Formats: sequence, structure tokens, C-alpha cells
Amino acid sequence: MCSVINMAKPVQALAFTLCIRSATRSSSHAAAHSRLIRTGVPSSLQPLNVSRRTYCSRAPLEGLFFRQLFESVSSTYTYLLADRGTKEAILIDPVLETVDRDLKLMDELGLTLKMAVNTHCHADHITGTGLLKQRLIVLKSAISKHCGAIADVLLSDGDQITFGNYYLTVRETPGHTDGCVTLVTGDQSMAFTGDALLIRGCGRTDFQQGCPKRLYQSVHQKIFTLPAHCLIYPAHDYKGQTVSTVGEERKFNPRLTKSLQEFVEIMNNLNLPKPAKIDIAVPANLVCGLHEV
Amino acid sequence: MCSVINMAKPVQALAFTLCIRSATRSSSHAAAHSRLIRTGVPSSLQPLNVSRRTYCSRAPLEGLFFRQLFESVSSTYTYLLADRGTKEAILIDPVLETVDRDLKLMDELGLTLKMAVNTHCHADHITGTGLLKQRLIVLKSAISKHCGAIADVLLSDGDQITFGNYYLTVRETPGHTDGCVTLVTGDQSMAFTGDALLIRGCGRTDFQQGCPKRLYQSVHQKIFTLPAHCLIYPAHDYKGQTVSTVGEERKFNPRLTKSLQEFVEIMNNLNLPKPAKIDIAVPANLVCGLHEV
Repeated sequence: MCSVINMAKPVQALAFTLCIRSATRSSSHAAAHSRLIRTGVPSSLQPLNVSRRTYCSRAPLEGLFFRQLFESVSSTYTYLLADRGTKEAILIDPVLETVDRDLKLMDELGLTLKMAVNTHCHADHITGTGLLKQRLIVLKSAISKHCGAIADVLLSDGDQITFGNYYLTVRETPGHTDGCVTLVTGDQSMAFTGDALLIRGCGRTDFQQGCPKRLYQSVHQKIFTLPAHCLIYPAHDYKGQTVSTVGEERKFNPRLTKSLQEFVEIMNNLNLPKPAKIDIAVPANLVCGLHEV
Repeated sequence: MCSVINMAKPVQALAFTLCIRSATRSSSHAAAHSRLIRTGVPSSLQPLNVSRRTYCSRAPLEGLFFRQLFESVSSTYTYLLADRGTKEAILIDPVLETVDRDLKLMDELGLTLKMAVNTHCHADHITGTGLLKQRLIVLKSAISKHCGAIADVLLSDGDQITFGNYYLTVRETPGHTDGCVTLVTGDQSMAFTGDALLIRGCGRTDFQQGCPKRLYQSVHQKIFTLPAHCLIYPAHDYKGQTVSTVGEERKFNPRLTKSLQEFVEIMNNLNLPKPAKIDIAVPANLVCGLHEV
């Protein structure tokens, strides 16, 4: 089952077996969508039965299927993760134009897509979530509750998105937008950082509630505190880079290694052009891409 | 040390410690370049001390640094591999336009680039090998002996390219060109297939000594015989796909799953336009990209 688990009141114990179903309202689409609440799993603790390794810039979770996919017009990375055993899959940041490619791949591999998660309300492309929902009836959409977007599941800090025997933990990392989240694998070996942290860069902060001070704090408090070997998978790259690590970005990110004051100064003087698709993409993404689909 | 090891007479034994230095002539640039010859390591046997795992579409070699890099104009993947311990690195298929990016990354990570290997004489882009050699005095270039290209090391079937404690084995996979090779990690968990096998596709066979029958035989005999979980890293992708596996391509490759006769028919009727850069790229790549650099 793919579900979102709300980290209600984490305490210092690993009570993995205690699962209480709750009627928490999690969506304007599906108010009755129930959420599993696991108590006693503080986000700072490592889960049981998941080993940590530090090799190869690669993912250590045995049994986890992982595929990085790219959409070249908006330079967006979509990530497909699945439990090889149960075949349950999630997509992170699907793009409208590459929905057919992604569906074909999942069909070939016999995967069942349970959830499409957006790391934030993108301004540069229309999410594929809406079209995927039209094609796959059981699919749930998910996005941060701070986006103001319609979705089946509205995510909060500490929530867990599960698929088969795996899960991602939601870390709110606002600053690029109010509703940006970073999704971290249970063993903290992979982090899907959206536009909060890019490889040797970061998302802009000059529109959509952007705030350089909040972004700096998000990255330093919620991403740079992950293990050094944790792989960074961003929502975009414009230079052909595919992955980085927390350790690399702590050392070499030309913006985030600066002081807060210097960072704010840099971000306030980027003078970037307005994203070409923003007036189409944002309204569409506020309804999970269903606009005009 | 980064070196090429010629698989002279493989026999059924794992004599890993026996290394005999030879004065085999391996290059028109560096005739005196010596090669290590290891006897007794048949390519069909697994090396000692390297475990095989089947998880995550990801690479299992502990201590091996791996990074996939992309050049968007020619849609070329460059691969950086290094021994995390010794810091010795190799680049597969570097591209002229992204040499600065690749050098910066290696500098940040403290890696020493020992060898730039081209999987074949590319027709769609100029290799970065020549420029890298200008920047890094110790760097050796390598390409198949069947390319007719100038290089420090001319590769043959069964050769091993070593970097630190790791090595890639050369498998000749002609058909796209005469001089195409596939490079396979010691534990057969990763294969860098150049243009011989692409994700759900393959390289064209209508120029540069292309031959569909040879390509079909190469893929079936030299790549599809690798373990099903072996990751396929091609030289190009045009649809945003980053990796596949031998198992996936055996099942889902729309060309290579056909009979030889059907494959030849398909390849002889692709009617593709001439590559835009072929008249510049091929002459340059025959001298490892030094032409007009």
C-alpha cells in the first residue's frame, strides 16, 4: 500500500509495528482519504533493517528500484522509485510532456504507480500529475499543504510517503516557494531536494513567495544536516550534472557555502528573466496540471 | 596506477597476483608505453572480493566513485569513474564542450584523471580527450585499435583498463563502427555500451563501416550475455533516460528483440539524416579531438 504517514508526535522509541488509522483531512479532492499515523518514529533516528553504505555515489537500499528521468525542455528530473517486491511505485516531479514515456516504462516493469508527488508548485513546466491521474484511476497526487494547490494528499513536515516496504520522509524546505519540500529515503541515503538545493546551485527566490533567508535556513537546517554521503537528486540541472552529495554541496556549493548575508545579497541580485511558462504553469500546477489537460 | 592490461591467454585460474610487464606496442603516440599483462583471468569468471547485488538500478562496487554526466547538444553521456581510495580516475567519452565542467568536478573531488577512453570514433561530437591531454600532462588516451585513430593506448578485446583497485574489461562490439567497444566493470554490474546498445535502441549502421549484422551479433554475444541486473550506460540518450539493464534490454529493446533478419531490415530502412557534425567530428576524433583544438 502506498500511503502518507503523518508524524504526529514522534518520541524516542522505534515502535514500527504500531499503526493507527486516522481520519485526518488531507485533501480538498478526497477529504475522506485516510492517513496512517505511526507514532514513535522520530525523524532523527535511523529505521530498523536498513543498512547504510557509503559507496559509489549510488543508492544503497536493496530491493528499491530507482530510475532518474529527464525532460530536456525544462531541464526537469523526474524520479521513479518502487519496491521491487510489491511493485508499488511513486513518481517525484512528473512532467506533462514525458507522461507517456514514464507510463510505458512502468508498464514494462510491471510497476503500479500509487502516488505522484510534486516537490513544489513548479513555475517552469506543467506537472504530469493531472494527466497521470486521468490515466491511472487509483493514483493519488501529493504536494505540500503550504502550496495552496489542490491535491489528494497535502504534505506536512515529518510525513512519510510509503510504497511497499520503503518510505520517504517529508522535510519542509521553503524559500524558493512557501511549499517546497525535500523527500528523504528512510535510511537518509538519498534526498530529492526539488528546487531548494540544486547541484552547485539553488532555486531562485524572486517570485512565488521566494525568500533567500528562508531558503538558506532550509538548506542548512534540513538538508546539510543529512549525512555527508546522502545523495542529492534535484528537480533540475542545466549543466548535465545528474547527482551530488550533501558532503559535496556543503563544501562546493558556490552560494550555500557563503554567509547568510552574502547569500541574500547574491540571491537578490541574480536579475534572472521571468520563466517563460510561469503564467501557464503555475495556474495549471495549482490544480495538479489538470488545467487545460 | 592506471593501466591497460592485455588479456593475453586467459586460462581457468584466478592468478590475480601474477603481473608481468610487457613492452607491447600500444600506441602511435607512445610506442614505448608499457602494458601490464595478467594471465589467468578469463573474462567469464568473476573476480575475487567483489560481491554482486541486485538492487536499485544502481552500482554495487563499494569504494568506486561513479558519476554520470550529460552534454545536451549531442545528447552524449560522459562517465567519471574513480577509486575513492587511490583517487585515480578515468573518463569515458568526454566531450569537448564539457571539458571545463569535468575538470572542475575532478579538481573539487581531488581525483587524478589517468585515462580518457572513447567507446568509438564518434561522428556527432568532438571528443574532449585532446583538450584534456593538453590540460593534464599525464593523461593517456585510449580507443579501440580497430578505429584507425591515434591514441596512447589502442584497445583490444579482453584488455583491462585499471584505475586504483578497479578495472573495466574491454569487449569489442562492432557494428555501429568497426571500432566500437563496450566497457564492463570487473563484477559485471555496469556496462558502458557506447553506441552499440542504447536504451531501447541502438546506434545506426549506415556509415563509418556500419553493419547491422555485426551489430546484432555484438549485442547478443557480448552484451546480452552479461547478467540480467548489469546496468547499461550508453553513450547517448535522446529521451531523458539515464540507465537500463541487460534484463530490460533483452526483453524490451524494440530492435534487438527481433530476429537478425528483421533487425537488418529495420536498420537498413531508418533513412536517418547525415549527422550534422560528422565532417568535423570524425577527422578530429581520429586524432583524439586535437584537430583544430
